Formats: sequence, structure tokens, C-alpha cells
Amino acid sequence: MAIPAEPKKIIIDTDPGIDDAMAIFVALRSPEVEVIGLTTIYGNVYTTLATRNALHLLEVAGRTDIPVAEGSHVTITKGTKLRIADFVHGADGLGNQNFPPPQGKKIDKSAAEFLVEQANLYPGKVTVVALGPLTNIALALELDPSFAKNVGQVVLLGGAFAVNGNVNPAAEANIFGDPDAADIVFTSGADILAVGINVTHQVVLTDADREKLENSSGKFAQYLCKILNVYFAYHHEAYSTKGVYLHDPAAILAAINPSLVTYTEGVVRVQITGITRGLTVLYNKQKRFGEVTEWSDKPTVKVAVTVDAPAIVKLVMDRLMDS
Amino acid sequence: MAIPAEPKKIIIDTDPGIDDAMAIFVALRSPEVEVIGLTTIYGNVYTTLATRNALHLLEVAGRTDIPVAEGSHVTITKGTKLRIADFVHGADGLGNQNFPPPQGKKIDKSAAEFLVEQANLYPGKVTVVALGPLTNIALALELDPSFAKNVGQVVLLGGAFAVNGNVNPAAEANIFGDPDAADIVFTSGADILAVGINVTHQVVLTDADREKLENSSGKFAQYLCKILNVYFAYHHEAYSTKGVYLHDPAAILAAINPSLVTYTEGVVRVQITGITRGLTVLYNKQKRFGEVTEWSDKPTVKVAVTVDAPAIVKLVMDRLMDS
Repeated sequence: MAIPAEPKKIIIDTDPGIDDAMAIFVALRSPEVEVIGLTTIYGNVYTTLATRNALHLLEVAGRTDIPVAEGSHVTITKGTKLRIADFVHGADGLGNQNFPPPQGKKIDKSAAEFLVEQANLYPGKVTVVALGPLTNIALALELDPSFAKNVGQVVLLGGAFAVNGNVNPAAEANIFGDPDAADIVFTSGADILAVGINVTHQVVLTDADREKLENSSGKFAQYLCKILNVYFAYHHEAYSTKGVYLHDPAAILAAINPSLVTYTEGVVRVQITGITRGLTVLYNKQKRFGEVTEWSDKPTVKVAVTVDAPAIVKLVMDRLMDS
Repeated sequence: MAIPAEPKKIIIDTDPGIDDAMAIFVALRSPEVEVIGLTTIYGNVYTTLATRNALHLLEVAGRTDIPVAEGSHVTITKGTKLRIADFVHGADGLGNQNFPPPQGKKIDKSAAEFLVEQANLYPGKVTVVALGPLTNIALALELDPSFAKNVGQVVLLGGAFAVNGNVNPAAEANIFGDPDAADIVFTSGADILAVGINVTHQVVLTDADREKLENSSGKFAQYLCKILNVYFAYHHEAYSTKGVYLHDPAAILAAINPSLVTYTEGVVRVQITGITRGLTVLYNKQKRFGEVTEWSDKPTVKVAVTVDAPAIVKLVMDRLMDS
């Protein structure tokens, strides 16, 4: 990938999370981007633990210069029971390794405040990569309606477009985590690229790849191999695939190099009630509906449809094994 | 197609409807099946008009020996405003031709009663081909829970599996017409083959095909050419396709000759509230969910995934042009 004269500024909204850790490390090793902050959210873990893990990962990477802003502890409509995926990532979110608490502290601003501040500071220049439920992004839009225009792009890992979900047959975990927030974000008018599990389920880190990571002397590779056990065990249990899905790294790399995915454009709405709560429906404009629908007159977003999976796996491997 | 020694008994549950008329005529011209009754339902028209049209079509075909049982005038949960697709089929459901009223009369039994009676009379031998909303089938299941076992198969035109709907981006018209009834039918345990618009949108009768029908001396071809204008005009307005979708004929032919489609098997649930009301979600069993879902422990159904479209168009043409 060509390195631009001025690296793209990115903020990673994250719920670390094993594949979040991989994604953060890949971003920190990518000269094409400058990580200007992490914001935290519940999802793989509760928000308090997400903040602790974010600080910890930056210390592992020796990048304590990057600020961490803590995000929402609850869904945007409040009162919704959170679904925490500790069965995927371990009780500590990082493969049950019981790492020591981080030395660093979160900043005083909330995630939403930090997002709004940075988007105002660098209008059109900040890419937000959202790796968890979209509560913080929706709160930023509520806090400052011009956030939709000021943010450069929101690349989000979320949705199951024309495929089964991973929470249940209808819903993908990040959208299911806060469907109301997701619907706000999708219809906000911001420049949005949604990378759903229809795409990330094609990006598989195999047992053989993992062995290569283990044999690497790279600091990140060594760290990740410790935490990957739980993630591999979950995938072995839940899926017939040999390996693990690189959800978050795929989303990060789609933000770093958009040519790694192709996308279609259309209006996306999120179902917020009933058995398909959290389901994403993309209107593909093939039919001109005579009646007004809930998709009418809403802004379009980009939805990834194909992915260069081998290129993404290679980039992840190369950047993590680099010492 | 090989003609079996004993033709398959079919009951067509129908809301005629231009493509319903084609499907009924194709069935009447198919020696592989014996049409033992029509039951009527709202959808393309209100139920009263559906009954009138069913009687009329049987008179056109000279088959007044076939009984017509009138179905429900309302959705199974009552009180839901019906969506009548007169903009697709004309105010009379048959291309605004103002045909004279039929001479014949509906039978005294309701559609649900007739369905239950016939399934009990010929256990395992009756195929119900449902071309409209599934209210009558759900009522038959309520009237006699053993209907699920006694009916041979229910082949239904309905659903939009992994594609946009035709009422709105989420929902297909027949399922949208009575989502509660559809969910009852899909989870009833009956042998069900769902033919959705993901399949029927591949089965297109072109302008050239229509010209061939016009030049045919066949009675049915001549009749249909009169009523097809409205249906072609709607498709021209709503879709970019050159021609019309043969929804109902495709479903009838899938019942007559199952080898014309391939199918997958899985649990189908229907969303009954919110913006995706009427959406069908098929659980494809690729993931083993750790949590209990609304798809868990429900009976599976068959969902058509591919279709031999050229063969279906040819069969429709051949049987309609036959004089």
C-alpha cells in the first residue's frame, strides 16, 4: 500500500476483545494511518473493562501517548440488558490471561465528547473505526448534529447483510448490542462504510497462520498467541470453519485501504423490536416501490460486498510479525 | 415430465390475480395433477372478488366441476388493514376487463373447513399450493392440529430469502399480507416448500413470449393476453426488467414437478412487528448458537434456492398455447 504524505487520522471505537487487540495492533503498525485516540464501549466486555483493556494494549504497544476516552455503559435507549460476549473472548476479554492493571488513565472527556472534539478539530479528516455497538457514535450525533458532516468517514464492523447473524439467525452482535443506536448512525447522513459478517466470515486466520505467528519473534505476534486460545476454542465450538474470523482486523484494514473491499450503496435500516431485533436490511434500489417505505428519503451508506481476504490475512500477518 | 399413474391431488389457495389465473390454467392443463378444489383469499383482490374470479376462471376453463371454497376476509389476528394489490392486477384483479359475473356458486364450507376435510379424506395425498397470504392454511391448522400431518405438502409462494422484498425492502407481499399466519404455517411441522421471490424473480415472461401467446389460437393464451396489459404495465413501472415475473406459475410448477427447483432446509421465522414486519429469516444451520434463539427447536421447512427458469417459462407457454 502506498503511504500517503499525511497519514489518515483514525479513532478506534473498541470493546477489546481479542480481535479488537489484533485490529489495534495492526493499526498501530500501519504507517498509512495515525491512531489519534481509542474510545471504548461495551460488547465483548463491559465498558469499564474495555477501557482497562484499551489502556493495557496501548502499554503493550508502547503507545501511551494515545488518549483513551471511555464510552457509554448503557445502550442509547437505556434499560436494555447488555449482551456481553465473554464466551468468545474470555471473562477478561483478552483470553483469560489476567494481565496486570494498566498504569495509564482514561482522559476526562467521554467517548462522544472526544469524537465530537476531534471531528471539529479536523473536519472531514477523521475516520472513526467502530468495532463494537454503535452507542458512542449515536451519542456523538446527538451531542453535535454536525458530527455527521464533520467526521470524515465511519467504518463500522456490523450487520449481516443477506446472511444469517451471529447472535441468532437474524442479528449480528454489534448491531444487536444497540439496534436503536445503529439505526441512528445508519440514517445520520454521515459517510458510512459497513463491513458486515457477510464479508468478515470470508477472512479466516487458520491454524497454520497461528503457528506462523507463534514462530515469529514479533512482540505483537507473541502477545496475541497467548490470548488467541479462547478465540480459537469458541470458533471451533460454534462453526465448522478451521480457524477464526478476523472481524475487527478486516474492518480496520478496510479503513486503512478501501480498495481491499468493494461495496454497494443503499439505505440501511435496523429492526429494533421482535425476533429479528438487530437485523440490518439494505435497500438495493432494484425495485421502485409505489408506496412510501421506511427506507424512503433516507441517506444511503456504503455496504461492503466483497473482500480481498487473502490480502487482508497477509497484511495482518505481516504487520503483527514485524518486530 | 412423466405422468404418474395417479395424478397428484392439489388444492390451489388463490387470490386471482393475473398470475394466479396463469397458474390455475397451467394446473388445469397439467396431466400430472388433479385440481380437487380452489380456496380463496384476499391479497391481489379482496376475498369476495377472489371467489368471484375463481369461479369465473373455472368457467372460462370449462371446469365448473371443481369446487370453490371461500376463505377468510381478514388476517388471523383480525383488525389488520389489508393491503390489496389492485395496482398490480387491476381493480377487478383480472386486468380491468370487467368480465360478466360467474354463474357458479361457492360451496358452503369455508376454505379452512374444505382444506381440513380433503386432507382427512386423502391423508398425505393432498398438496396445497398457496398463492396468497397464508390465513386459510393457518386457520386449517387451528381448526384441526392434525392438518399439519394429514396434508401431503404445502407449496407456498412467499418470502424474500436473502433478497429485498416487493412490498418494501424487507417484506414479500404474501407474507406481509398476514405475517402471523405465515409464522404459524412455517412452524407448524407440515411438509412445506417455500418458493420466494428470490426464486420467482428469475422466472420472467418476456415481451417476445407474450407475442407468441398472442399469436397462439389456444383458448387460455387468448384469454390471458387480454388481461396481461395491466401486469406488464406495473412491471415496467416498478422494475427495470423486460417482462413480468411468473410468481404463481413458478410455484404451481414447483408443486407439479419438484425437480424444477432445488431447495435448502432450515427453520423459517417471520417478523411480525416493526419496519421489517413480514420479513422471513431462514436459519441455515451454519452456526451452532450457544444461546437459545427463536429458531431453536422449531420444525424445518424447505426453501427453494435455485430454479430452472427456462424450463418453467417453456412449460407455461406450452400448456397455455395448447388448444
